[in-house]
Amino acid sequence: MVLVENKQVVLKDFVDGIPKENDMEIKIGKIDLLHPPNDDDNNKGFILVKNLYLSCDPYMRGRMRNFHGSHLPPYVPGQALEGFGVAKVVSSSDPDFKPGDFVSGVTGWEEYSFIRKNEQLRKFVPDDDIPLSFHLGLLGMPGFTAYAGFFEVCSPKKGETVFVSAASGAVGQLVGQLAKLHGCYVVGSAGSNKKVDLLKNKLGFDEAFNYKDEPDLEAALKRYFPQGIDIYFDNVGGETLDAVLANMRIFGRIAACGMVSLASLSGPQQMRNLYHIIPKRIRIQGFLQSDYLNLFPRFVEYVTSYYKQGKIVYIEDTNEGLESGPSSLAGLFSGKNVGKQIIRVAHQ
Amino acid sequence: MVLVENKQVVLKDFVDGIPKENDMEIKIGKIDLLHPPNDDDNNKGFILVKNLYLSCDPYMRGRMRNFHGSHLPPYVPGQALEGFGVAKVVSSSDPDFKPGDFVSGVTGWEEYSFIRKNEQLRKFVPDDDIPLSFHLGLLGMPGFTAYAGFFEVCSPKKGETVFVSAASGAVGQLVGQLAKLHGCYVVGSAGSNKKVDLLKNKLGFDEAFNYKDEPDLEAALKRYFPQGIDIYFDNVGGETLDAVLANMRIFGRIAACGMVSLASLSGPQQMRNLYHIIPKRIRIQGFLQSDYLNLFPRFVEYVTSYYKQGKIVYIEDTNEGLESGPSSLAGLFSGKNVGKQIIRVAHQ
Repeated sequence: MVLVENKQVVLKDFVDGIPKENDMEIKIGKIDLLHPPNDDDNNKGFILVKNLYLSCDPYMRGRMRNFHGSHLPPYVPGQALEGFGVAKVVSSSDPDFKPGDFVSGVTGWEEYSFIRKNEQLRKFVPDDDIPLSFHLGLLGMPGFTAYAGFFEVCSPKKGETVFVSAASGAVGQLVGQLAKLHGCYVVGSAGSNKKVDLLKNKLGFDEAFNYKDEPDLEAALKRYFPQGIDIYFDNVGGETLDAVLANMRIFGRIAACGMVSLASLSGPQQMRNLYHIIPKRIRIQGFLQSDYLNLFPRFVEYVTSYYKQGKIVYIEDTNEGLESGPSSLAGLFSGKNVGKQIIRVAHQ
Repeated sequence: MVLVENKQVVLKDFVDGIPKENDMEIKIGKIDLLHPPNDDDNNKGFILVKNLYLSCDPYMRGRMRNFHGSHLPPYVPGQALEGFGVAKVVSSSDPDFKPGDFVSGVTGWEEYSFIRKNEQLRKFVPDDDIPLSFHLGLLGMPGFTAYAGFFEVCSPKKGETVFVSAASGAVGQLVGQLAKLHGCYVVGSAGSNKKVDLLKNKLGFDEAFNYKDEPDLEAALKRYFPQGIDIYFDNVGGETLDAVLANMRIFGRIAACGMVSLASLSGPQQMRNLYHIIPKRIRIQGFLQSDYLNLFPRFVEYVTSYYKQGKIVYIEDTNEGLESGPSSLAGLFSGKNVGKQIIRVAHQ
């Protein structure tokens, strides 16, 4: 037994509304580096990792509720949160992983975690040109969500018009850049002038606007898309989706991504424009990136290549230390982050 | 000039709410059988028809509004309504049509109409085994809507579960029968016990229920589909669509058909379950039958063959005379009709 302290970000209790910083707390736990907890399996297949970076993602809100009907189980109050992370293998009883290997995948919000091999646990070789944390954003689940959603769900054609909500977020910023690389006209919405400035001047969107400055979203979209919207990559749902429906073109496509669910947690949505679906033959398609994992290698190759050519950029918002975990995650739901929200747990 | 009386069903003024009988009136007009009105074109390509049957269809409500943004222009107050009809050619300056030919297509709500060739005007040879009026229902636009919507939009697989709303209507009754022929489990909803009885005992649905007897639609659907719904053929939208979303299975498909638009004309919809679209990867696809016209011959062959084998039935609700036009059309929106609503204008 080698017991060491293991700092954790713990869920205090289930959360019904929007997660707040004090729904979580820092706890100093202990971990036996030689034996996983609840080891029914004689330590078989367990991988002990030191967590380096953790990812704050909107879907995590769903796991903070006391709701078992989702595709992911809720977190356990009193225990560390889980989420995507980049980590370094300390020891392993799985022959595919060796001490010193870098991995990305679902891990605990703590210093050390025992994890097991699974479909989304990936070993990677660090690349001097690519920050480790990018495996949580540009080259991780959010980036892949953008890639699979845009290319596989939106059926984009060169010259089409694309609208992206939450456009400076972890997913949205890549959707817009992929659409530009594909020859589309791209407009993004975001919740601050700083984000709008980044969209226009750093991320290469054709236009961008602050939705908080637009009392009439339908009219705003009409200004930016006088001919209508061919593709809407929906990261927010709710009234934005409703305003978009009125501005869609015939045969338009809507990819429904993560945050619609979150918007809807707050209660019923007043939808005025659903009827546009029929005469405009609109397709709304919900999707999860995990259905497209066979495309992951192609995605990594595509994005890495464009990133190294300087044709894709990626904005991160990095906070230091597990202590920043509760405020970082809560900040996601008030739009405090600018770009992909990352927590740096430890330097290599 | 050969002037004769021409009885018409005329729109009195634009209609905002649900059409009522007295939004229309009977007018005795006059028609010159030798010259079309507003003949800028020297009578070229005009076909004079005697109307035999007229079709009451939900989409017509959209044309009664003063709204020019739709794919169909509004009716003109003071003039005859238009809609699908079966008619006999009286005279024609179009070489493709001869006196005595039977046609189905868009015509006026009147005794005689001048029409022109178009994509949806079809000549047909009467068949002793098939009522003429079936060219407005089973073998007309509503039947083809069912065929194209079910086979092309719903991507059905044998053994899947199918829910149809407005199931005894002109479209719904065929959707259910096509789904049964395809090996699906089919449940329909309707607005009276008489209709429910027809669905179960004449149209071959596995189950059916009266939605007016179900204060909790979500719970009702859960009873009929304990494992969830793979395919929803949506003829009504609104709260039924919302209740269905909560009961859809993963990778479920929703074909959004005509009446969603009508439900939405009444104002905003409270939607609680849109968020299901994402984790269940639901596809909602709006469609119009007119996008699939290349399949029309295959549809006629398919349905005619099954009908003659007694494997498809079709229920009509026939009212006599143009005088019944206003009440027949208005009745459609209160669910008065049982089956496809037809008006018989004249015997051959």
